[in-house]
Amino acid sequence: MRQLSTQDASFEQQLTSLLAFETVNDIDLLKTVDDIIAQVRRDGDEVVLRLTQKFDQHPATTMQELELSQESLVDAFEALDDDVKTALTTAATRVQRFHERQAQESWQYEDELGNRLGQKVTPLDRVGIYVPGGLASYPSSVLMNAIPAKVAGVGEVIMVVPAPKGVLNPLVLAAAHLAKVDRVFTIGGAQAVAALAYGTQSIPAVDKITGPGNKYVAAAKRAVFGQVGIDMIAGPSEVLVYAEGSNNDRADWLAMDLLSQAEHDRVAQAIFVTTSREQLDAVALEIEKALAALPKADIARDALQNRGALILVKDRAEGMAVINRVAPEHLELSVDDPDDLLSGIRHAGAIFMGRHTPEAIGDYCAGPNHVLPTSGTARFSSPLGVYDFQKKSSIIYCSESGSKPLAKTADILAQHEDLEAHARSARYRYQ
Amino acid sequence: MRQLSTQDASFEQQLTSLLAFETVNDIDLLKTVDDIIAQVRRDGDEVVLRLTQKFDQHPATTMQELELSQESLVDAFEALDDDVKTALTTAATRVQRFHERQAQESWQYEDELGNRLGQKVTPLDRVGIYVPGGLASYPSSVLMNAIPAKVAGVGEVIMVVPAPKGVLNPLVLAAAHLAKVDRVFTIGGAQAVAALAYGTQSIPAVDKITGPGNKYVAAAKRAVFGQVGIDMIAGPSEVLVYAEGSNNDRADWLAMDLLSQAEHDRVAQAIFVTTSREQLDAVALEIEKALAALPKADIARDALQNRGALILVKDRAEGMAVINRVAPEHLELSVDDPDDLLSGIRHAGAIFMGRHTPEAIGDYCAGPNHVLPTSGTARFSSPLGVYDFQKKSSIIYCSESGSKPLAKTADILAQHEDLEAHARSARYRYQ
Repeated sequence: MRQLSTQDASFEQQLTSLLAFETVNDIDLLKTVDDIIAQVRRDGDEVVLRLTQKFDQHPATTMQELELSQESLVDAFEALDDDVKTALTTAATRVQRFHERQAQESWQYEDELGNRLGQKVTPLDRVGIYVPGGLASYPSSVLMNAIPAKVAGVGEVIMVVPAPKGVLNPLVLAAAHLAKVDRVFTIGGAQAVAALAYGTQSIPAVDKITGPGNKYVAAAKRAVFGQVGIDMIAGPSEVLVYAEGSNNDRADWLAMDLLSQAEHDRVAQAIFVTTSREQLDAVALEIEKALAALPKADIARDALQNRGALILVKDRAEGMAVINRVAPEHLELSVDDPDDLLSGIRHAGAIFMGRHTPEAIGDYCAGPNHVLPTSGTARFSSPLGVYDFQKKSSIIYCSESGSKPLAKTADILAQHEDLEAHARSARYRYQ
Repeated sequence: MRQLSTQDASFEQQLTSLLAFETVNDIDLLKTVDDIIAQVRRDGDEVVLRLTQKFDQHPATTMQELELSQESLVDAFEALDDDVKTALTTAATRVQRFHERQAQESWQYEDELGNRLGQKVTPLDRVGIYVPGGLASYPSSVLMNAIPAKVAGVGEVIMVVPAPKGVLNPLVLAAAHLAKVDRVFTIGGAQAVAALAYGTQSIPAVDKITGPGNKYVAAAKRAVFGQVGIDMIAGPSEVLVYAEGSNNDRADWLAMDLLSQAEHDRVAQAIFVTTSREQLDAVALEIEKALAALPKADIARDALQNRGALILVKDRAEGMAVINRVAPEHLELSVDDPDDLLSGIRHAGAIFMGRHTPEAIGDYCAGPNHVLPTSGTARFSSPLGVYDFQKKSSIIYCSESGSKPLAKTADILAQHEDLEAHARSARYRYQ
């Protein structure tokens, strides 16, 4: 595993190359995806069914077979072992409670002229949630996408999840039941994104699509952006664990926290930053030890080798600079005084404070969303939240007298923008 | 001008075709834009300068000549006539005041287990504002993009505005001064978007790019989305004016309000919806009369013919249904009781209430933003605001005891997602 130090002359360059991850937008991929979207827009259900048979080897022969009943979701939940049922319910309840605090309210105020101004907040009518199939089909992702939408008051939540060879993860269906998903279609890929964006005979068009997917799904989301809203284009997941060599730290805990990121996939990124050379070596050792006992050691080892790093910094200030430079999706602060660090952190998707807050708790059940900005996009974007499923309309009410001075100002500025109808429309209100 | 009625058997179909506006994503355009972006990433300033000379016929021979000094912005402001100076200052002040109410605050709470959860809100570090050059170079757009960024606390606001043949609108520079824009580069097109997204030797990379532009700018914004944040891909502008044939309405006012949209460009959309056939005819007549005296009659006539409509509805309920179907960027409610309509309006960028609130006032100086979701995207997006220049980090702090039950839940769920390192990392915290 790569070891870097801020003392290296080439540190800045090494860090840049560590963080580089280019999503390839190759023209062939774009063309394939554009073709699929055009086909779905033209022929609807027929194309969706055909492509689902082809790409997912799904045995369905009619579109109806690609929709799941609410009963099948309930059945999946009821069939779970009690401990899983409890764990999933606990997670759903905590996610619900946290997100209820995010709901935005409409507001208005009256200005000194007697005009009323404000914003009206409303939920989206209908949203689509993309849930990956196969190995990366996670029930927690269903909760994290659907619950904020429901808290926002979205009228209808439509979930799509591909079922390779017709096989589905029953926990995903159980989570859909818990999260009160309204309809579930077992479709995936660019065809599912196109169907949600434009609608087909069976699948209603939605207003926004959220959720992660492979490169076809990502390209399709980028292409339909504007027709519908989308969340981020997700990159590989990453964690940055920060420590300062305290005796309260346990190297085996820190190692396992890093590995819990690395086991996701071969391009996942785990970065350890510490002010202590001794701790850096101890964590490196514990990673090796832990790897020996992990079922996904192979994936984790690749991820650590390709994109992992142990970084030695001189002091806290340097540590903070590295954190803000990385803008990590997940940031763990394994220090005695995490609150003291908080004001210096400018960019991070989620901040896990202290030694008893491993990323895994946030992934499942702390309450905050686990859909977080990846690949440095925490510089400009936020965790998925209720606010992603609400939108605002500005409200402007001018009284007859309050309108006059504003109309005069608008008249002057419109004339200078050579917009005569604007100017006259304003002038009617004050002359 | 097209007249429709909800009584027509084909009304639904006619409305669909009225609203259809396809942004063409042709592969050639994408390729041209991708090439420009790749060149700017590789060779930086040199390419930006060369393309600015080529596309804008700009006389500059060095990159330094493409940056404006703060003094030149002050000079532009000082040279304005007093009435314009006052109008621009009034607009800036009102926009500032309204947007100050949008700033989001960090929040935290303690759950029943003694864990602390919340979200930390921070401004973006640096943003880029694209201001179109030439005819559509509006000082009001500078205020509407830069002021919310400054209210959010963005560290540095970089404006780009192309200067065809080196010529700039002095009001745009004056507005940049008023809005406290930090740096101004006279560049445009896909090369300006690429420079802002990736940075060059002279132009610092930003975290988000906002502002409208032509199809090259729109395609470039779509392409760099993910590297940086972007606002919407803007479509043509539209207004829907709703009335109910009241004697308090003035047909000449309604006509001019529609024309103030139509004069923008040949694909702008102006729609009048009324419950009164008599009023519909009167407004049609006033539009013709007003057109005769408008300098941009030619553009407005084209817009009305191509994309305008006068729509007769049976009653208020039908009117509301048409409004929500259109999800207009601008909605004027020319009725006695606009507040009674408010709860029924699900989708609109900005709602102009009553007869003394023409769109023109909102365009310039009411206070709310004039950058609004176009082409039906009010279904899922919001006016530009301070919230577009802030982002959130989730905060999770588990106490030693509060961590244990959550760690147990995470352990169970992680095992069912076959993520063993997640499970162990959680288990360390409760065993």
